[in-house]
Amino acid sequence: MRTPICDDLGIEFPIFAFTHCRDVVAAVSRAGGFGVLGAVGFTPEQLEVELAWIDEHVGDHPYGVDIVIPGKYEGMDDMDPEHLAQTLRDMVPEEHLAFARKLLSDRGVPELPEGESNELQLLGWTEATALPQVQTALAHPKVALIANALGTPPVDVIELIHDAGRKVAALCGSPHQALKHKEAGVDLVIAQGGEGGGHTGEVGSIVLWPQIAAAIAPTPMLAAGGVGSGQQIAAALALGAQGVWAGSLWLTVEEADLPPAQKKQLLDASSRDTVRSKSFTGKPCRMIKTEWTEAWSAADAPDPLPMPLQYMVSGDCVARSHRYADKALSVMFNPVGQVVGQLDHVEKTSAVVQRLVEEYLEAVDRLDTLTAAAAGA
Amino acid sequence: MRTPICDDLGIEFPIFAFTHCRDVVAAVSRAGGFGVLGAVGFTPEQLEVELAWIDEHVGDHPYGVDIVIPGKYEGMDDMDPEHLAQTLRDMVPEEHLAFARKLLSDRGVPELPEGESNELQLLGWTEATALPQVQTALAHPKVALIANALGTPPVDVIELIHDAGRKVAALCGSPHQALKHKEAGVDLVIAQGGEGGGHTGEVGSIVLWPQIAAAIAPTPMLAAGGVGSGQQIAAALALGAQGVWAGSLWLTVEEADLPPAQKKQLLDASSRDTVRSKSFTGKPCRMIKTEWTEAWSAADAPDPLPMPLQYMVSGDCVARSHRYADKALSVMFNPVGQVVGQLDHVEKTSAVVQRLVEEYLEAVDRLDTLTAAAAGA
Repeated sequence: MRTPICDDLGIEFPIFAFTHCRDVVAAVSRAGGFGVLGAVGFTPEQLEVELAWIDEHVGDHPYGVDIVIPGKYEGMDDMDPEHLAQTLRDMVPEEHLAFARKLLSDRGVPELPEGESNELQLLGWTEATALPQVQTALAHPKVALIANALGTPPVDVIELIHDAGRKVAALCGSPHQALKHKEAGVDLVIAQGGEGGGHTGEVGSIVLWPQIAAAIAPTPMLAAGGVGSGQQIAAALALGAQGVWAGSLWLTVEEADLPPAQKKQLLDASSRDTVRSKSFTGKPCRMIKTEWTEAWSAADAPDPLPMPLQYMVSGDCVARSHRYADKALSVMFNPVGQVVGQLDHVEKTSAVVQRLVEEYLEAVDRLDTLTAAAAGA
Repeated sequence: MRTPICDDLGIEFPIFAFTHCRDVVAAVSRAGGFGVLGAVGFTPEQLEVELAWIDEHVGDHPYGVDIVIPGKYEGMDDMDPEHLAQTLRDMVPEEHLAFARKLLSDRGVPELPEGESNELQLLGWTEATALPQVQTALAHPKVALIANALGTPPVDVIELIHDAGRKVAALCGSPHQALKHKEAGVDLVIAQGGEGGGHTGEVGSIVLWPQIAAAIAPTPMLAAGGVGSGQQIAAALALGAQGVWAGSLWLTVEEADLPPAQKKQLLDASSRDTVRSKSFTGKPCRMIKTEWTEAWSAADAPDPLPMPLQYMVSGDCVARSHRYADKALSVMFNPVGQVVGQLDHVEKTSAVVQRLVEEYLEAVDRLDTLTAAAAGA
């Protein structure tokens, strides 16, 4: 499965692993793939600690960092971060906060200790908060790629990354967005089908991937959404991808640091147990269907707020559900794609990479056999 | 792309074409694929006319017939057809009929001529109406396959078809349904991802296909939902399919007898212009998003009725939108999958089959080249 981006990045397999866990980043890159650390939950100081750890454990291999810059908010471009945060806080209705709090308290999910509340917290969902993350990442020479999970990165951010000699990737769910990425100077476009976990569009991977590959050629496309086996990688490459971007797959590996109850919920879930819901961040985000997602889509629920406001409502519940996972499965925040139905046991990260490569080769063999049979018939 | 089912059915390519147009059935089978006529709109007498025409035009090639038997309706098994139809008619609220009528009249779509109204008509959506279709089909020796578009066919119907020496196929959208099909004796399971047109589930093809192939092995799986190119066929075979089942692809071919305005709507649509809606038949059915589908999902709309009642509401609107297509695009009934975004010009059916084969071979070549590059690296 060697494609041109393997040479560009100095990797063996074009298997990109998005994860929030530094151990998985290092393990994937050591195994010949390309680990990408999701930075959205970290302050710049925390991110520095994580990247220093990865540098120590990844050997000579490159890795990446994923940030979230969902574009500008109208009229807020020039605000300083504290003013921006306060302006956004004032936009969150009390009704939404009360609705969210009640969902968790009704189910006996404990509150966070005094002073640790995440309510109304603004994480790295704006350029103001994401830019320091980019600067932190660029100080680490093994960081070969910065990816933006949502929307086209601002041109100044792309220039900053290019000037440092690194590559830029960006996710999208339509050919239109893909072309915007390409025009802005993005080096790798990640096409994520609606099957995918987290923020995702409506169009399925089998339809979306070839459309985007054709629209942006010769810019390379990575296929995301529904990749959890080597057969799925073969399908992606047959459809024009130069590699794959997988997230869900790494949530249940041995090295992943999810709470055990959350990991078990993933191992037990079928592909029909996820839903695209705006209740987490304000944009459709695929996650395990729970009483939380169901409640926000009920007729008597307030409409989820637009990004970034909804996370200011849900953020405290996210933190509580993860901290007290045993008691919070019915309202657990567990973003994952439909590929979750393929995850039924814990594997080491390196074993997953090896399995993907072997399954890929088997799938290509299968196609060759079918083609040979036709030629001989 | 020769797989064992090619030998079983005596065809060159495992490309199954679902269509309501007899010309397309004959053209696909003559080109080496396998045409399947959707029989749901036909009385047994009309179906006999269509099949006799196909027999004359298909040469020595086999073809199939697709029926709809959505299982039994509780408490209605023993009713005679007329009693059943009346019982169902009595269950349709006037509110729904009025809501539907107003949607079309507000947009200036003419009514059907006196005496031709389709309102409250029950088509072949029950075993009572579908069984005569099966019997008609089995009288034609070139009919090698009967497919059921919805649910597991009743055991007596499967036996009837097997006793006549023909094969049975059935569509599904989950491994659970696939196993029910297999246990009932279905010979070919068609796994349709959520991208597909018409009745379809939620799980995307890239995830669904390998799950179903593994669940029912060694029973063969045909991949449906998102198949419109040879690359997509290569992906399907890499994921374990023995062939593909495509419907949308044949709506815009030269031979397809859709009203020109309806065909143009398909050629103009992107992959984001479809929606899964219960407003057509009562079960989620992917079709072009229109003011009809939007109206039925609005807060003030009546909830769509369960199958088969909703079609008794929509059926007259379906007939009107097709008869007066030029005036009815805003409420057109145009079931199609997300693959519609790939359809942008009219081709001859035989050219489509040839293109699929060529694109398939290119995709396999591409994978071989990548594998060779890795081996040489």
